[in-house]
Amino acid sequence: MSFDRLIQKIKETKNPSVVGLDPKLDYVPKYICEKHFAEEGTTLRAAANAILEFNCAIIDVIYDIVPAIKPQAAYYEMYGWEGVRVLAETIRYAQEKGMFVMTDGKRNDIGATMEAYAAAHLGTVMVNGEEMEPFGADALTVNGYLGTDGIAPLMKICKEKDKGIFVLAKTSNPSSGELQDKCIGETPIYAVMGDMCEAWGADTIGEYGYSAVGAVVGATYPEQLRELRKRLPHTLFLVPGYGAQGGGAAGLAGAFDENGLGAIVNSSRAIMCAYKKEENCPEDQFAQAARREALRMRDDITAYINLK
Amino acid sequence: MSFDRLIQKIKETKNPSVVGLDPKLDYVPKYICEKHFAEEGTTLRAAANAILEFNCAIIDVIYDIVPAIKPQAAYYEMYGWEGVRVLAETIRYAQEKGMFVMTDGKRNDIGATMEAYAAAHLGTVMVNGEEMEPFGADALTVNGYLGTDGIAPLMKICKEKDKGIFVLAKTSNPSSGELQDKCIGETPIYAVMGDMCEAWGADTIGEYGYSAVGAVVGATYPEQLRELRKRLPHTLFLVPGYGAQGGGAAGLAGAFDENGLGAIVNSSRAIMCAYKKEENCPEDQFAQAARREALRMRDDITAYINLK
Repeated sequence: MSFDRLIQKIKETKNPSVVGLDPKLDYVPKYICEKHFAEEGTTLRAAANAILEFNCAIIDVIYDIVPAIKPQAAYYEMYGWEGVRVLAETIRYAQEKGMFVMTDGKRNDIGATMEAYAAAHLGTVMVNGEEMEPFGADALTVNGYLGTDGIAPLMKICKEKDKGIFVLAKTSNPSSGELQDKCIGETPIYAVMGDMCEAWGADTIGEYGYSAVGAVVGATYPEQLRELRKRLPHTLFLVPGYGAQGGGAAGLAGAFDENGLGAIVNSSRAIMCAYKKEENCPEDQFAQAARREALRMRDDITAYINLK
Repeated sequence: MSFDRLIQKIKETKNPSVVGLDPKLDYVPKYICEKHFAEEGTTLRAAANAILEFNCAIIDVIYDIVPAIKPQAAYYEMYGWEGVRVLAETIRYAQEKGMFVMTDGKRNDIGATMEAYAAAHLGTVMVNGEEMEPFGADALTVNGYLGTDGIAPLMKICKEKDKGIFVLAKTSNPSSGELQDKCIGETPIYAVMGDMCEAWGADTIGEYGYSAVGAVVGATYPEQLRELRKRLPHTLFLVPGYGAQGGGAAGLAGAFDENGLGAIVNSSRAIMCAYKKEENCPEDQFAQAARREALRMRDDITAYINLK
């Protein structure tokens, strides 16, 4: 009922990073795609199965050095319901390898509908008297624009099933300031949202001082990272925007507390497509290249923090 | 590239309402559930197929009197990827009957990820050189918290494929004011978001004066509905919260323009579960009860507006 499970994995692997699995078909080596198209024709099913093979191969080589994966729902939905099937299978595969899985869905709604999302992604659903787990991730990203009515149904499941959520506060994109930097009185909206995260999580604080309600704060805004770290002492940060979007490791240091905890940094494309960037890396070495990039990222980030 | 297709359907049916298909298994008559459990066991697949049969039966009796359906993604995701398959099949079935389909997903993200959502729900995806349509709805609800970076990828597809979006402005829930009513300077956030909708839609205005960017404004806040109708002359409103959530038809009148256009009002549970509320309605008359409630709602709303 806090983020302790994730923090323990971070301490075990000495690695406060998460691999984003946002697999466009273009990222998957051609020989894998061709095999599945040959088997099942040019179909969404073949595309989805190619992605699953790619995901599993990456998970196989990172689960001992990386605490978590973050599959982005959009890239699975893009391949229709067959893609969504592969989202479910990817989650299960990573969990079987001991990884913590956060589904990046940025879901939001109210009341009974938010309960349905919570049951879908973190909880269970009753079918004819039996309890079933539709996706069963360990955490979910959510958007708090609708206020407490959109968060309360998640908190119930977080407490019952030991799951967590990350609420968007200051996102990594260039236009995030259009709304998020505007001030309510003297306080920017991203900080108001951060304060709500502290309030929503107040009764779920775990042994490392962090609650089950985290916040998304972009690596591209190091000043806000530092400011929010001080303002929100119980809120774990999920930090996108490292690498590809331009956020450097030095700027990330402010996201962490004095024990090197308090944040987990995401990288997606740089890891999935590492084989395309390495010189002379054969396609069939894509997984090993991903592992090398994951290790490089770990070392890059931990050089600036005090994680024991 | 505007909401003209939807508005034409509203004028044809003389009905500015949309039936929300948010099918919890509890809403589906027992005899349908039992049939599917008998055929396929107690599985998510059986649950999803029961929901599909329920949806199609309702669509069969409303497509001549109601312009649109709004399936809520959460209730399909709750039954796992089999549920998401049924979302896709429901969309297609309603479109074959000539209905306009708006997927209520409140999706939000940035850049390439928002492109993936846009392709998934409104557009197409290229697989091995072939263009495929994963879900193919006519409109999608989205959350604008991330600013223009989260909307621009949708606009591209709206223009290319003649689709629309509805951005959350003032939601119908009790806690919507926690953030949305806060003021930036003198302007509440819901109005700031509304202004963004006008700006995002500016180059997609159709023959009825409305753009491809609509806004979600709750029936439970009649004063804000009226205020926003004046403030946002080119923004079509999707209005949830009628009936079950307490919004009455008289209060809705302010959402419409002088031609009875400018808004479409949603009802979900009251229609899907009409058979449970009618006295002595046998379960197998659920569809006819849904039709009766859809007609009652149409008459209730149109009594207050000037739709020709």
